[in-house]
Amino acid sequence: MNFLEERIVKDGVVKAGNVLKVDSFLNHQMDIALLEEIGKEFKRRFGHKKITKVLTIEASGIGIACFVAKEFGVPMVFAKKTVSINIDGEMLVTEVESFTHKNKNRVIVAKRFISPDDHVLIIDDFLANGCALQGLISIAESAGATVEGLGIAIEKGFQFGGRAIRNLGYDLESLAIVESMDDTTGEIVFAPQK
Amino acid sequence: MNFLEERIVKDGVVKAGNVLKVDSFLNHQMDIALLEEIGKEFKRRFGHKKITKVLTIEASGIGIACFVAKEFGVPMVFAKKTVSINIDGEMLVTEVESFTHKNKNRVIVAKRFISPDDHVLIIDDFLANGCALQGLISIAESAGATVEGLGIAIEKGFQFGGRAIRNLGYDLESLAIVESMDDTTGEIVFAPQK
Repeated sequence: MNFLEERIVKDGVVKAGNVLKVDSFLNHQMDIALLEEIGKEFKRRFGHKKITKVLTIEASGIGIACFVAKEFGVPMVFAKKTVSINIDGEMLVTEVESFTHKNKNRVIVAKRFISPDDHVLIIDDFLANGCALQGLISIAESAGATVEGLGIAIEKGFQFGGRAIRNLGYDLESLAIVESMDDTTGEIVFAPQK
Repeated sequence: MNFLEERIVKDGVVKAGNVLKVDSFLNHQMDIALLEEIGKEFKRRFGHKKITKVLTIEASGIGIACFVAKEFGVPMVFAKKTVSINIDGEMLVTEVESFTHKNKNRVIVAKRFISPDDHVLIIDDFLANGCALQGLISIAESAGATVEGLGIAIEKGFQFGGRAIRNLGYDLESLAIVESMDDTTGEIVFAPQK
Protein backbone atom coordinates (compact mmCIF):
# COMPACT_ATOMS: atom_id res chain seq x y z
CA MET A 1 0.00 0.00 0.00
CA ASN A 2 1.16 3.55 -0.70
CA PHE A 3 0.96 6.44 1.79
CA LEU A 4 -2.57 7.44 0.81
CA GLU A 5 -3.97 3.91 0.86
CA GLU A 6 -2.41 3.43 4.31
CA ARG A 7 -4.02 6.63 5.54
CA ILE A 8 -7.44 5.63 4.12
CA VAL A 9 -7.24 2.27 5.92
CA LYS A 10 -6.20 4.03 9.14
CA ASP A 11 -8.61 6.98 9.20
CA GLY A 12 -11.23 6.43 6.47
CA VAL A 13 -14.70 5.23 7.47
CA VAL A 14 -16.90 3.08 5.24
CA LYS A 15 -20.60 3.93 5.39
CA ALA A 16 -23.63 2.23 3.87
CA GLY A 17 -24.34 3.15 0.25
CA ASN A 18 -20.69 2.94 -0.86
CA VAL A 19 -19.79 6.12 0.97
CA LEU A 20 -16.13 6.48 2.01
CA LYS A 21 -15.64 9.21 4.57
CA VAL A 22 -12.19 10.79 4.54
CA ASP A 23 -13.29 14.05 6.09
CA SER A 24 -10.87 13.84 9.01
CA PHE A 25 -7.85 14.30 6.73
CA LEU A 26 -8.80 15.10 3.12
CA ASN A 27 -12.01 17.01 2.45
CA HIS A 28 -13.27 18.79 5.57
CA GLN A 29 -10.39 18.76 8.00
CA MET A 30 -7.20 18.71 5.93
CA ASP A 31 -3.88 17.20 6.91
CA ILE A 32 -1.50 19.64 5.25
CA ALA A 33 1.50 17.27 5.35
CA LEU A 34 -0.60 14.69 3.48
CA LEU A 35 -1.63 17.27 0.86
CA GLU A 36 2.04 18.14 0.35
CA GLU A 37 2.89 14.47 -0.12
CA ILE A 38 0.06 14.13 -2.66
CA GLY A 39 1.45 17.18 -4.48
CA LYS A 40 4.92 15.59 -4.66
CA GLU A 41 3.49 12.25 -5.86
CA PHE A 42 1.63 13.92 -8.75
CA LYS A 43 4.83 15.77 -9.64
CA ARG A 44 6.55 12.37 -9.77
CA ARG A 45 3.83 10.92 -12.01
CA PHE A 46 3.33 13.88 -14.36
CA GLY A 47 6.71 15.61 -14.04
CA HIS A 48 7.81 14.48 -17.54
CA LYS A 49 5.02 16.57 -19.05
CA LYS A 50 4.95 20.30 -19.69
CA ILE A 51 2.29 21.65 -17.35
CA THR A 52 1.40 25.36 -17.39
CA LYS A 53 -1.73 25.33 -15.23
CA VAL A 54 -3.48 23.22 -12.62
CA LEU A 55 -7.29 23.16 -12.85
CA THR A 56 -9.68 21.93 -10.15
CA ILE A 57 -13.23 22.51 -8.96
CA GLU A 58 -14.36 24.01 -5.67
CA ALA A 59 -14.28 23.22 -2.85
CA SER A 60 -12.46 20.10 -1.68
CA GLY A 61 -10.14 19.88 -4.70
CA ILE A 62 -8.59 23.27 -3.91
CA GLY A 63 -6.26 22.11 -1.14
CA ILE A 64 -4.69 19.29 -3.15
CA ALA A 65 -4.52 21.44 -6.29
CA CYS A 66 -2.62 24.17 -4.39
CA PHE A 67 0.17 21.77 -3.47
CA VAL A 68 0.30 20.20 -6.94
CA ALA A 69 0.57 23.69 -8.47
CA LYS A 70 3.31 24.53 -5.96
CA GLU A 71 5.33 21.49 -7.11
CA PHE A 72 5.00 22.47 -10.77
CA GLY A 73 5.53 26.19 -10.08
CA VAL A 74 2.40 27.15 -12.02
CA PRO A 75 -0.87 28.95 -11.18
CA MET A 76 -3.94 27.06 -10.02
CA VAL A 77 -7.44 27.84 -11.27
CA PHE A 78 -10.54 26.53 -9.57
CA ALA A 79 -13.86 26.23 -11.38
CA LYS A 80 -16.78 27.81 -9.54
CA LYS A 81 -20.13 26.16 -9.02
CA THR A 82 -22.25 29.29 -9.00
CA VAL A 83 -22.42 32.45 -11.01
CA SER A 84 -20.85 35.18 -8.93
CA ILE A 85 -21.47 38.85 -9.57
CA ASN A 86 -17.69 39.22 -9.25
CA ILE A 87 -17.01 37.24 -12.41
CA ASP A 88 -17.29 39.16 -15.60
CA GLY A 89 -15.95 38.91 -19.08
CA GLU A 90 -16.26 35.78 -21.18
CA MET A 91 -16.84 32.56 -19.30
CA LEU A 92 -16.30 28.89 -20.03
CA VAL A 93 -19.42 27.10 -18.82
CA THR A 94 -20.48 23.50 -18.36
CA GLU A 95 -22.98 21.58 -16.27
CA VAL A 96 -22.01 18.80 -13.88
CA GLU A 97 -24.04 16.43 -11.79
CA SER A 98 -23.01 15.80 -8.19
CA PHE A 99 -23.06 12.24 -6.90
CA THR A 100 -22.82 13.48 -3.32
CA HIS A 101 -25.44 16.19 -3.45
CA LYS A 102 -27.76 14.63 -6.07
CA ASN A 103 -28.08 17.88 -7.97
CA LYS A 104 -26.72 19.69 -11.02
CA ASN A 105 -24.31 22.60 -10.85
CA ARG A 106 -23.40 25.13 -13.45
CA VAL A 107 -19.60 25.21 -13.43
CA ILE A 108 -17.70 28.20 -14.74
CA VAL A 109 -14.16 29.42 -15.34
CA ALA A 110 -13.31 32.90 -16.58
CA LYS A 111 -12.06 32.45 -20.14
CA ARG A 112 -9.00 34.65 -19.65
CA PHE A 113 -7.47 32.14 -17.22
CA ILE A 114 -7.24 29.23 -19.67
CA SER A 115 -5.76 29.88 -23.09
CA PRO A 116 -5.07 27.70 -26.17
CA ASP A 117 -1.38 27.74 -25.13
CA ASP A 118 -2.12 26.12 -21.78
CA HIS A 119 -1.13 22.56 -20.89
CA VAL A 120 -3.54 21.67 -18.13
CA LEU A 121 -3.26 19.16 -15.29
CA ILE A 122 -6.72 18.53 -13.82
CA ILE A 123 -6.80 17.65 -10.11
CA ASP A 124 -9.61 16.51 -7.80
CA ASP A 125 -10.01 14.66 -4.53
CA PHE A 126 -12.59 12.07 -5.63
CA LEU A 127 -13.57 10.29 -8.83
CA ALA A 128 -16.81 8.28 -8.87
CA ASN A 129 -19.02 8.64 -11.94
CA GLY A 130 -16.64 11.20 -13.41
CA CYS A 131 -19.12 14.03 -13.99
CA ALA A 132 -16.94 16.68 -12.35
CA LEU A 133 -13.84 15.57 -14.29
CA GLN A 134 -15.73 15.47 -17.58
CA GLY A 135 -16.89 19.01 -16.87
CA LEU A 136 -13.33 20.18 -16.23
CA ILE A 137 -12.08 18.43 -19.40
CA SER A 138 -14.86 20.10 -21.37
CA ILE A 139 -13.95 23.53 -19.94
CA ALA A 140 -10.23 23.13 -20.70
CA GLU A 141 -10.83 21.86 -24.23
CA SER A 142 -13.44 24.49 -25.05
CA ALA A 143 -10.68 27.02 -24.32
CA GLY A 144 -8.46 25.21 -26.84
CA ALA A 145 -6.05 24.09 -24.10
CA THR A 146 -4.35 20.67 -23.99
CA VAL A 147 -5.36 18.33 -21.17
CA GLU A 148 -2.03 16.70 -20.28
CA GLY A 149 -3.40 14.55 -17.51
CA LEU A 150 -5.79 14.08 -14.62
CA GLY A 151 -4.69 13.40 -11.06
CA ILE A 152 -7.16 12.03 -8.51
CA ALA A 153 -6.58 11.23 -4.86
CA ILE A 154 -9.25 8.54 -4.45
CA GLU A 155 -11.05 6.74 -7.28
CA LYS A 156 -14.06 4.53 -6.72
CA GLY A 157 -13.00 1.81 -9.15
CA PHE A 158 -16.37 0.07 -8.96
CA GLN A 159 -18.07 3.07 -10.57
CA PHE A 160 -17.66 3.77 -14.26
CA GLY A 161 -16.09 7.25 -14.24
CA GLY A 162 -12.44 6.27 -14.37
CA ARG A 163 -12.91 3.67 -17.08
CA ALA A 164 -14.86 6.10 -19.27
CA ILE A 165 -12.16 8.76 -19.04
CA ARG A 166 -9.31 6.28 -19.66
CA ASN A 167 -11.23 4.83 -22.64
CA LEU A 168 -11.29 8.32 -24.13
CA GLY A 169 -7.49 8.23 -24.09
CA TYR A 170 -6.79 10.58 -21.19
CA ASP A 171 -3.81 10.02 -18.89
CA LEU A 172 -5.65 9.51 -15.59
CA GLU A 173 -3.69 8.72 -12.42
CA SER A 174 -5.46 7.86 -9.17
CA LEU A 175 -3.35 7.46 -6.04
CA ALA A 176 -5.83 5.05 -4.45
CA ILE A 177 -8.39 3.03 -6.40
CA VAL A 178 -11.03 1.46 -4.18
CA GLU A 179 -12.19 -1.82 -5.71
CA SER A 180 -14.66 -2.68 -2.98
CA MET A 181 -15.74 -1.58 0.49
CA ASP A 182 -17.73 -3.33 3.19
CA ASP A 183 -19.56 -1.09 5.64
CA THR A 184 -20.25 -3.99 8.02
CA THR A 185 -16.57 -4.98 8.45
CA GLY A 186 -15.03 -1.64 7.41
CA GLU A 187 -12.79 -3.51 4.98
CA ILE A 188 -11.46 -1.60 1.96
CA VAL A 189 -9.89 -3.40 -1.01
CA PHE A 190 -7.64 -1.39 -3.35
CA ALA A 191 -6.78 -2.14 -6.97
CA PRO A 192 -3.09 -2.99 -7.45
CA GLN A 193 -0.92 0.03 -8.26
CA LYS A 194 1.08 0.06 -11.49
CA MET B 1 3.14 49.30 0.60
CA ASN B 2 3.57 45.66 1.54
CA PHE B 3 3.73 42.78 -0.96
CA LEU B 4 -0.03 42.25 -1.08
CA GLU B 5 -0.89 45.93 -1.46
CA GLU B 6 1.64 46.14 -4.29
CA ARG B 7 0.05 43.15 -5.99
CA ILE B 8 -3.46 44.61 -5.61
CA VAL B 9 -2.32 47.87 -7.21
CA LYS B 10 -0.62 45.94 -10.01
CA ASP B 11 -3.27 43.31 -10.83
CA GLY B 12 -6.48 44.24 -8.98
CA VAL B 13 -9.32 45.85 -10.89
CA VAL B 14 -11.79 48.31 -9.36
CA LYS B 15 -15.36 47.95 -10.59
CA ALA B 16 -18.46 50.03 -9.97
CA GLY B 17 -20.29 49.27 -6.72
CA ASN B 18 -17.13 49.05 -4.61
CA VAL B 19 -16.14 45.73 -6.16
CA LEU B 20 -12.44 44.90 -6.12
CA LYS B 21 -11.57 42.08 -8.48
CA VAL B 22 -8.50 40.08 -7.49
CA ASP B 23 -9.50 36.95 -9.35
CA SER B 24 -6.35 36.80 -11.44
CA PHE B 25 -4.20 36.01 -8.40
CA LEU B 26 -6.25 35.40 -5.23
CA ASN B 27 -9.73 33.93 -5.57
CA HIS B 28 -10.25 32.26 -8.94
CA GLN B 29 -6.80 31.90 -10.42
CA MET B 30 -4.38 31.56 -7.52
CA ASP B 31 -0.74 32.62 -7.48
CA ILE B 32 0.73 29.95 -5.23
CA ALA B 33 3.91 31.90 -4.42
CA LEU B 34 1.70 34.76 -3.20
CA LEU B 35 -0.36 32.38 -1.04
CA GLU B 36 2.87 31.07 0.49
CA GLU B 37 4.00 34.62 1.25
CA ILE B 38 0.63 35.35 2.88
CA GLY B 39 1.03 32.19 4.98
CA LYS B 40 4.46 33.34 6.17
CA GLU B 41 3.19 36.84 6.96
CA PHE B 42 0.39 35.48 9.16
CA LYS B 43 2.94 33.26 10.90
CA ARG B 44 4.96 36.40 11.60
CA ARG B 45 1.93 38.24 12.96
CA PHE B 46 0.38 35.40 15.02
CA GLY B 47 3.47 33.26 15.68
CA HIS B 48 3.64 34.30 19.36
CA LYS B 49 0.29 32.61 19.97
CA LYS B 50 -0.41 28.94 20.48
CA ILE B 51 -2.45 27.88 17.44
CA THR B 52 -3.79 24.31 17.15
CA LYS B 53 -6.12 24.70 14.18
CA VAL B 54 -6.77 26.96 11.21
CA LEU B 55 -10.43 27.53 10.33
CA THR B 56 -11.77 29.00 7.09
CA ILE B 57 -14.87 28.85 4.90
CA GLU B 58 -15.18 27.42 1.41
CA ALA B 59 -14.19 28.16 -1.25
CA SER B 60 -11.74 30.99 -1.78
CA GLY B 61 -10.38 30.97 1.78
CA ILE B 62 -9.09 27.40 1.42
CA GLY B 63 -5.95 28.20 -0.56
CA ILE B 64 -4.69 30.84 1.87
CA ALA B 65 -5.70 28.75 4.89
CA CYS B 66 -3.69 25.77 3.58
CA PHE B 67 -0.47 27.77 3.54
CA VAL B 68 -1.15 29.38 6.92
CA ALA B 69 -1.77 25.91 8.41
CA LYS B 70 1.45 24.69 6.79
CA GLU B 71 3.42 27.46 8.52
CA PHE B 72 1.91 26.60 11.91
CA GLY B 73 2.14 22.82 11.35
CA VAL B 74 -1.52 22.31 12.28
CA PRO B 75 -4.60 20.92 10.48
CA MET B 76 -6.94 23.18 8.53
CA VAL B 77 -10.72 22.85 8.69
CA PHE B 78 -13.01 24.52 6.19
CA ALA B 79 -16.65 25.27 6.98
CA LYS B 80 -19.06 24.05 4.33
CA LYS B 81 -21.88 26.11 2.88
CA THR B 82 -24.30 23.28 2.20
CA VAL B 83 -25.46 20.21 4.02
CA SER B 84 -23.73 17.24 2.46
CA ILE B 85 -24.98 13.69 2.85
CA ASN B 86 -21.35 12.83 3.59
CA ILE B 87 -21.33 14.77 6.84
CA ASP B 88 -22.76 12.97 9.79
CA GLY B 89 -22.44 13.11 13.54
CA GLU B 90 -22.96 16.30 15.49
CA MET B 91 -22.56 19.53 13.59
CA LEU B 92 -21.79 23.11 14.50
CA VAL B 93 -24.18 25.24 12.47
CA THR B 94 -24.58 28.94 11.79
CA GLU B 95 -26.11 31.14 9.10
CA VAL B 96 -24.14 33.71 7.16
CA GLU B 97 -25.16 36.26 4.59
CA SER B 98 -23.06 36.70 1.47
CA PHE B 99 -22.28 40.23 0.29
CA THR B 100 -21.15 38.89 -3.08
CA HIS B 101 -24.02 36.53 -3.78
CA LYS B 102 -26.81 38.42 -1.94
CA ASN B 103 -28.08 35.28 -0.26
CA LYS B 104 -27.91 33.37 3.02
CA ASN B 105 -25.96 30.19 3.52
CA ARG B 106 -26.14 27.61 6.23
CA VAL B 107 -22.55 27.05 7.29
CA ILE B 108 -21.50 23.86 9.05
CA VAL B 109 -18.47 22.22 10.62
CA ALA B 110 -18.47 18.69 12.00
CA LYS B 111 -18.24 19.06 15.77
CA ARG B 112 -15.49 16.48 16.15
CA PHE B 113 -13.02 18.72 14.30
CA ILE B 114 -13.13 21.62 16.78
CA SER B 115 -12.80 20.87 20.48
CA PRO B 116 -12.73 22.99 23.66
CA ASP B 117 -8.95 22.46 23.73
CA ASP B 118 -8.49 24.09 20.35
CA HIS B 119 -6.84 27.47 19.82
CA VAL B 120 -8.20 28.61 16.50
CA LEU B 121 -6.81 31.01 13.92
CA ILE B 122 -9.59 32.05 11.52
CA ILE B 123 -8.49 32.88 7.96
CA ASP B 124 -10.33 34.30 4.98
CA ASP B 125 -9.53 36.12 1.77
CA PHE B 126 -11.97 39.05 2.12
CA LEU B 127 -13.61 41.00 4.92
CA ALA B 128 -16.42 43.39 4.05
CA ASN B 129 -19.46 43.39 6.33
CA GLY B 130 -17.96 40.58 8.40
CA CYS B 131 -20.83 38.09 8.18
CA ALA B 132 -18.62 35.15 7.20
CA LEU B 133 -16.11 35.90 9.97
CA GLN B 134 -18.83 36.30 12.58
CA GLY B 135 -20.20 32.92 11.50
CA LEU B 136 -16.77 31.31 11.89
CA ILE B 137 -16.27 32.94 15.32
CA SER B 138 -19.69 31.66 16.35
CA ILE B 139 -18.85 28.13 15.20
CA ALA B 140 -15.50 28.06 17.01
CA GLU B 141 -16.92 29.47 20.24
CA SER B 142 -19.97 27.21 20.22
CA ALA B 143 -17.46 24.33 20.27
CA GLY B 144 -15.85 25.89 23.34
CA ALA B 145 -12.63 26.66 21.46
CA THR B 146 -10.55 29.81 21.90
CA VAL B 147 -10.39 32.23 18.96
CA GLU B 148 -6.78 33.38 19.09
CA GLY B 149 -7.00 35.64 16.08
CA LEU B 150 -8.38 36.36 12.65
CA GLY B 151 -6.22 36.83 9.56
CA ILE B 152 -7.65 38.45 6.44
CA ALA B 153 -5.94 39.11 3.13
CA ILE B 154 -8.02 42.11 2.01
CA GLU B 155 -10.32 44.17 4.22
CA LYS B 156 -12.72 46.74 2.87
CA GLY B 157 -12.06 49.33 5.54
CA PHE B 158 -14.99 51.48 4.45
CA GLN B 159 -17.46 48.75 5.43
CA PHE B 160 -18.23 48.08 9.05
CA GLY B 161 -17.17 44.43 9.44
CA GLY B 162 -13.61 44.93 10.62
CA ARG B 163 -14.52 47.63 13.13
CA ALA B 164 -17.31 45.52 14.64
CA ILE B 165 -15.00 42.53 15.14
CA ARG B 166 -12.16 44.64 16.59
CA ASN B 167 -14.67 46.38 18.92
CA LEU B 168 -15.60 42.95 20.26
CA GLY B 169 -11.97 42.56 21.32
CA TYR B 170 -10.76 40.09 18.70
CA ASP B 171 -7.21 40.22 17.37
CA LEU B 172 -7.94 40.89 13.69
CA GLU B 173 -5.07 41.38 11.25
CA SER B 174 -5.69 42.38 7.64
CA LEU B 175 -2.74 42.44 5.26
CA ALA B 176 -4.33 45.11 3.07
CA ILE B 177 -7.06 47.49 4.23
CA VAL B 178 -8.71 49.34 1.38
CA GLU B 179 -9.85 52.77 2.55
CA SER B 180 -11.30 53.87 -0.74
CA MET B 181 -11.46 52.87 -4.40
CA ASP B 182 -12.34 54.80 -7.51
CA ASP B 183 -13.68 52.80 -10.42
CA THR B 184 -13.28 55.70 -12.85
CA THR B 185 -9.54 56.19 -12.20
CA GLY B 186 -8.78 52.70 -10.81
CA GLU B 187 -7.11 54.34 -7.80
CA ILE B 188 -6.96 52.32 -4.57
CA VAL B 189 -6.09 53.96 -1.23
CA PHE B 190 -4.89 51.73 1.61
CA ALA B 191 -5.05 52.42 5.34
CA PRO B 192 -1.56 52.82 6.89
CA GLN B 193 -0.11 49.56 8.22
CA LYS B 194 0.85 49.34 11.87
